[in-house]
Amino acid sequence: MGDEAQPPSAILWQDGRLRLLDQRRLPKEVVYLEIGSVAAAYDAIRTLAVRGAPAIGIAAGYALVAAMAAEEPTDAKRFRARLAAHASHLRTARPTAVNLAWACNRLLAAAEGSADLQTIRAEAEAIHAEDRLICRAIGTHGQALIPENAGVLTHCNAGALAVSELGTATAPLYLSHAAGKRLRVFVDETRPLLQGARLTAWELSAAGIDVTLICDGAAATFMAAGEIDLAIVGTDRVTANGDVVNKIGTLGVAVLCRHFGIPFYVALPSSTFDAHTPTGAQVPIEERDPAEVLGDQAAAVPARNPAFDVTPASLVTAFITDRGVLRPPFAEALRGLSV
Amino acid sequence: MGDEAQPPSAILWQDGRLRLLDQRRLPKEVVYLEIGSVAAAYDAIRTLAVRGAPAIGIAAGYALVAAMAAEEPTDAKRFRARLAAHASHLRTARPTAVNLAWACNRLLAAAEGSADLQTIRAEAEAIHAEDRLICRAIGTHGQALIPENAGVLTHCNAGALAVSELGTATAPLYLSHAAGKRLRVFVDETRPLLQGARLTAWELSAAGIDVTLICDGAAATFMAAGEIDLAIVGTDRVTANGDVVNKIGTLGVAVLCRHFGIPFYVALPSSTFDAHTPTGAQVPIEERDPAEVLGDQAAAVPARNPAFDVTPASLVTAFITDRGVLRPPFAEALRGLSV
Repeated sequence: MGDEAQPPSAILWQDGRLRLLDQRRLPKEVVYLEIGSVAAAYDAIRTLAVRGAPAIGIAAGYALVAAMAAEEPTDAKRFRARLAAHASHLRTARPTAVNLAWACNRLLAAAEGSADLQTIRAEAEAIHAEDRLICRAIGTHGQALIPENAGVLTHCNAGALAVSELGTATAPLYLSHAAGKRLRVFVDETRPLLQGARLTAWELSAAGIDVTLICDGAAATFMAAGEIDLAIVGTDRVTANGDVVNKIGTLGVAVLCRHFGIPFYVALPSSTFDAHTPTGAQVPIEERDPAEVLGDQAAAVPARNPAFDVTPASLVTAFITDRGVLRPPFAEALRGLSV
Repeated sequence: MGDEAQPPSAILWQDGRLRLLDQRRLPKEVVYLEIGSVAAAYDAIRTLAVRGAPAIGIAAGYALVAAMAAEEPTDAKRFRARLAAHASHLRTARPTAVNLAWACNRLLAAAEGSADLQTIRAEAEAIHAEDRLICRAIGTHGQALIPENAGVLTHCNAGALAVSELGTATAPLYLSHAAGKRLRVFVDETRPLLQGARLTAWELSAAGIDVTLICDGAAATFMAAGEIDLAIVGTDRVTANGDVVNKIGTLGVAVLCRHFGIPFYVALPSSTFDAHTPTGAQVPIEERDPAEVLGDQAAAVPARNPAFDVTPASLVTAFITDRGVLRPPFAEALRGLSV
């Protein structure tokens, strides 16, 4: 992958120093925060300077290492006690982020074996490396689905900023671009929070990919005009039958793809497959503050603001996973991911 | 229709005084501008204080009457000359607004017969009255399509603010509400210019109708949940074969309706039917400033901003017109409108 094709890194770890891209200031300013303590990491996670479940986990691992490095306790018992204290504080920064607690626990488990800096640093780096490999595997498998000169639609941000290096939905795009394939990516702005306009458009464009920002309501007209050859989105959860929970607006994209005969792909790391929930109907959908919809221009009326929607498995052409591309029947194909 | 059910009036004409609702300040402030001269009307039209083709025509007619009343020329020749001078200035306020020139010409033609204030005032009032009757006829025909307890989706603003009294797409809603039918209207915010959030939500809510504002990308999820029973939109032009040119996002709504088995209705005055253009493919689509999409939050990337899209006739359940509800085959049914 050439230098130009590098997406921006949300997390930098060099010489024992952790720096996080401050996503609150994107796309206006590209500023990295120096994270030298658990307090600083707590703040960055809580205030969404770093976001996306995998990215939060990676940042938490490194933050614990940085904090322990500053203390340098020589005694193993004291090392474990301090690490545990830091971890139990850090994990409260965003209590519902599964990867946050998971990463803290991995470092604690590693320290059970050997209570020293080198061990937990290796564990934190392993978490990061695994995530990178997963994204790269998704990219490698997905790349084959993207024809030369493709017009690709994506929705929300399942990119490098939320994960590591290549992102999930974006990984096939980064690798195709790096391989010299020409492509043009249409990015839905993704109201109400504009993750497409603020984050995806920014990171793809920073990597030198041809990006066109459109309003969510304009996707249909570009499909009708033949400018979109496929859609790729990420997902927050895929249920046992293959239903896809993702950012509000995803279902609409999937229905449009079906109508216009365009493939609709969903990229996911195996860990996002939820074998224990039978269908999307069992997934509670977070309904956020109506103020996000109303903004400062709307009339003073009631608003509804579901943050996610459920796309039925029947509208998915294929899942692009780190273990390969899965095609229907999905229930069977997905089962392999939980092994 | 009870007092509570009255939508707000964009145009007030009382005792020879013209007042225009300043739509630039909606929904934050409800302020009427006093229009006592052609200069004031010119300004109001040019700066979009009054908008919507029919509303502009009505306002222009009254503005000419108000201007002539202030001058009171007694000589017929001088009356016609002054009226012509005012009209030729006023019609340049928005040169592409067909109704503006059309209304000016109607007053000039009336003054050819009898060059006095009473005649042109009667003509201006006729323009307004005709528009009101057309909206009411659309409402009467459309009302029958709205079941008790209906959830209705609408997109953009084809309401009282753009036309007169009842609007087009909104007329069946206002009349159903006035008749005591319970209904709940979901209003797409309609990015990028938010006509749904700013105008439609405001005018329906001001008339006491149960309104829920949603992001454009959320329509699919409310359809999937069974909360939407039908969609009604307005249109800028319907071509000979029944293709519908309307605000960007309309095509997406129509595709979703088809997918979820929900009727998709298009309301229009007969004058919006364009018998001379065979299909939507022949209609040039205005592409507006990308800055409207980018706003102040997006990354600095290219954006596309088509203002309208084309919904094929095959996705339309029926047209609701002032001359009745038209069902397929549309080419034949629509032909009657141009007679």
